[in-house]
Amino acid sequence: VVPPKPQPAPEGPRAGAAAPGGAREGEDAAIVRLAALLRTASGPPPPGEIWIGDDAAVVAAPRGRLVLSTDATVAGVHADLSLVGLDDFGWKALTAAVSDIGAMGARPVCALVTLCAPPGTDLDALTAGLAQASARWACPVVGGDLSTAEQVVVSVAVAGALDGGSPPVTRRGASPGDVLAVTGPLGGSAAGLRVLRAGGGATATGASGAVVKAHLRPAARLAEGRAARSAGATAMIDVSDGLSIDLHRLADASGVGFHLDSVPVAPGATREEALGGGEDYELVVAAADPDALIAAFTAQGLRPPEVVGRCVADRRDRRLEGEALPRTGWEHRMG
Amino acid sequence: VVPPKPQPAPEGPRAGAAAPGGAREGEDAAIVRLAALLRTASGPPPPGEIWIGDDAAVVAAPRGRLVLSTDATVAGVHADLSLVGLDDFGWKALTAAVSDIGAMGARPVCALVTLCAPPGTDLDALTAGLAQASARWACPVVGGDLSTAEQVVVSVAVAGALDGGSPPVTRRGASPGDVLAVTGPLGGSAAGLRVLRAGGGATATGASGAVVKAHLRPAARLAEGRAARSAGATAMIDVSDGLSIDLHRLADASGVGFHLDSVPVAPGATREEALGGGEDYELVVAAADPDALIAAFTAQGLRPPEVVGRCVADRRDRRLEGEALPRTGWEHRMG
Repeated sequence: VVPPKPQPAPEGPRAGAAAPGGAREGEDAAIVRLAALLRTASGPPPPGEIWIGDDAAVVAAPRGRLVLSTDATVAGVHADLSLVGLDDFGWKALTAAVSDIGAMGARPVCALVTLCAPPGTDLDALTAGLAQASARWACPVVGGDLSTAEQVVVSVAVAGALDGGSPPVTRRGASPGDVLAVTGPLGGSAAGLRVLRAGGGATATGASGAVVKAHLRPAARLAEGRAARSAGATAMIDVSDGLSIDLHRLADASGVGFHLDSVPVAPGATREEALGGGEDYELVVAAADPDALIAAFTAQGLRPPEVVGRCVADRRDRRLEGEALPRTGWEHRMG
Repeated sequence: VVPPKPQPAPEGPRAGAAAPGGAREGEDAAIVRLAALLRTASGPPPPGEIWIGDDAAVVAAPRGRLVLSTDATVAGVHADLSLVGLDDFGWKALTAAVSDIGAMGARPVCALVTLCAPPGTDLDALTAGLAQASARWACPVVGGDLSTAEQVVVSVAVAGALDGGSPPVTRRGASPGDVLAVTGPLGGSAAGLRVLRAGGGATATGASGAVVKAHLRPAARLAEGRAARSAGATAMIDVSDGLSIDLHRLADASGVGFHLDSVPVAPGATREEALGGGEDYELVVAAADPDALIAAFTAQGLRPPEVVGRCVADRRDRRLEGEALPRTGWEHRMG
């Protein structure tokens, strides 16, 4: 049976069938519109590459090894949309996934994004934040998927490259005696959330303004990760869940303990926020030769990493200023 | 200020802190357990590769071009969890993303998965389905992320390779005069959902049993996609949203119209289900030389594709058995 009342076949996807934020529109039309937003940020694909619009994307493969990360960002879990804009949400979703590439000492090449959101969600705002982050981190969004959902869930997968022949920097390579360094002060994101919750987001200046920005628009330490790898870093992790828990993870994987002498606290943040807040995306780097590490950063014009302690042989021995350091931090409760 | 009441540092991630389906557990412990389930299906990583457990995965890069797809599968949108098991949900999530790789004529290499689910969700069942599909499609899950969410949302990103030198098969290359063929009959998945909704899932046999299986455990036509590419297919798309809409998408991208002579309907399915049901994941292939196409399938021991029509020059001219074919199918409403 031929479906009743056949209609004239339209010419191409229903692009322009609905204004942004206006009437309900089809998935194909939304993809065309959002792809245009993303392309404004990243430019067109190089010749021979296929980005959004086919069954899959096709890009030039990096040589040697491929580095892959993925991160889900969930409204109400990772971001409070009453305090954070959808554009900030998109920025953060892409930046968090890119940061994991940086934490291997790799360079992001491109990203895939799935956007799941309730009908009526301002997908243009969400995509604008993704596009801004993709431009900032030189990581074009080359493919994606859209779906309705009860809450906003953005998953970003990033493919990265290891330029040059040296291996990736894992969490596993730290040895007793290696120094531990961090690429910047911590706790800014958690402090920014505190300021936003107190209603001070709009008027924040100085240190308060900086921590609000750290929460809304975190940075991925990509150049720093590559510098650390070039300097022979033995292990590395990004501080996504909190310095303490992420340092424990690095120590677990490497089979070492650690003695931290200090915690660099971002201006406007508390020490607890620096230890347990998470989402700072600074890197924790283990290295046998701190001078070489600092020199590599300086040579690239980067703020030199701050040495905060060292690795020790007893994997149970994990201290901050002589006291045992608990594994506090941000862990989703599952199960 | 050192956090009060410091506790002894635990030895490694809290693996085994909670039994599957038991008490609430931390993200790290869940990742360790789920990674073990996935590894049982796929085996260990080859030497030099890093899979789940670091900031990012590291795998051997395919030569030349990298093919990338992503798909979000959302409970209540893409699958009704009152009718479909979490293991089936996981199978489908991975298979849908792998199918997009196959529709370019590429081979899946590995997958990344983000699992978002309400606390208490049986993540082991979900992961078992992912693991079964990853084994079936030779596509190990090498990385992922976990989060709580209000509903189950699984995003899968797949990286694929184009073995040999020939280019990917896009949606764009069909020319007037090319035949259109499909790799199998359609409508099975939609018919299976109908049987399940009627309460006949447990007792279905014969054609009913086959369509229920088509809904619960769809297949990706990977070997078929590669055979089509090797035979010089000019355009290809997988039937994820329905033959009609997906054929319109191929025709839109190629700038052609089409005349369909017939629609192969899966036993137990209706013609409407075949045209508009979606999630069959059969491939629609355009080819200038149908004999070469069929020969390539036969040489691989594959069921030969069924020629169902041809492309025509007038892109507005889109017909089934002489009648205009509307763009019916499955489109999420967004915006």
